Amino acid sequence: MKAPPDKCEGVVICLTGLSGAGKTTLARLLEKTVTEEGRPVQVLDGDDIRKNLSKDLGYCRADRETNMRRIGYVCRLLIQHGVMVIVSAISPYRNVRDEIRCACECRFVEVYVKCPVQSLIQRDAKGLYRRAIAGEIPNFTGISDPYEEPLNGEIVVETDRQSQEESLCAIVETLKRLDYL
Amino acid sequence: MKAPPDKCEGVVICLTGLSGAGKTTLARLLEKTVTEEGRPVQVLDGDDIRKNLSKDLGYCRADRETNMRRIGYVCRLLIQHGVMVIVSAISPYRNVRDEIRCACECRFVEVYVKCPVQSLIQRDAKGLYRRAIAGEIPNFTGISDPYEEPLNGEIVVETDRQSQEESLCAIVETLKRLDYL
Repeated sequence: MKAPPDKCEGVVICLTGLSGAGKTTLARLLEKTVTEEGRPVQVLDGDDIRKNLSKDLGYCRADRETNMRRIGYVCRLLIQHGVMVIVSAISPYRNVRDEIRCACECRFVEVYVKCPVQSLIQRDAKGLYRRAIAGEIPNFTGISDPYEEPLNGEIVVETDRQSQEESLCAIVETLKRLDYL
Repeated sequence: MKAPPDKCEGVVICLTGLSGAGKTTLARLLEKTVTEEGRPVQVLDGDDIRKNLSKDLGYCRADRETNMRRIGYVCRLLIQHGVMVIVSAISPYRNVRDEIRCACECRFVEVYVKCPVQSLIQRDAKGLYRRAIAGEIPNFTGISDPYEEPLNGEIVVETDRQSQEESLCAIVETLKRLDYL
């Protein structure tokens, strides 16, 4: 029987899903909860990573893979020092998510922040979907670029059906069940 | 009077100097010493960073600056979690070293690992200087690309005159004097 993970060790919580699905909101809520438990936590936000580590990269498959691998490298560094790293980035490709899971020695919890693209198009708070559909933003995940849904992720939250609090509770319960919290 | 730094907080130890001057050797010796003191420590090696975060970058000034800034970003993430980060990279430009010092709120110790370029050309363990002089490696720091010496760094170690142990001792003493160890 596998020993439960040491709670003092780090872990990556990978919030993956389409743009606008609610990843960053959930990441910040989870960060607050984990901080209140006295645990070291670091949010890695996709936009911050693009700005600080990947300004050179575009949105073709090869560049997106490279961007994900850079996030994975930073995750590895941080979890080695006992940090819970909450990644809030689209992370569209299954193979690279799996690769990061391996590189982090399976200290990796995949949270699919699921929302149907039709709901996102209707909501479209930043107007990105409208521009993507009009062809003004190429390689837009869910419109003109693929999103590969998790097949065996640890948890799915459905942000078009659940409230933020319900989604957060589901994630926290999963982390407790897996002995990460 | 400025309060002494909290030893539990992180700090960046920036080992800067020419290729072959002994940065990586000193980084590993320092890592061992710090680990023995029970402190969390992470070495960021220039070659690792190039491989994991900056494969796309070359060696012109703009690319080297970007590479240094990426290292700085990772340092900031790690020191926020109490880690002593030992950077072993040429870090040739004063302005970017200073920028990282600021970004790390001055929790930054600049160690100039100094060795005259003539000694490095004679030693040339990896044959890189020979190739750089022959023009086979462009933009080689100290030969065909500038190295801007620290003007107000915390410490200088002279690896052509001091033994590894002497250099290490000098760095450790500086860290103790500054209350980082």
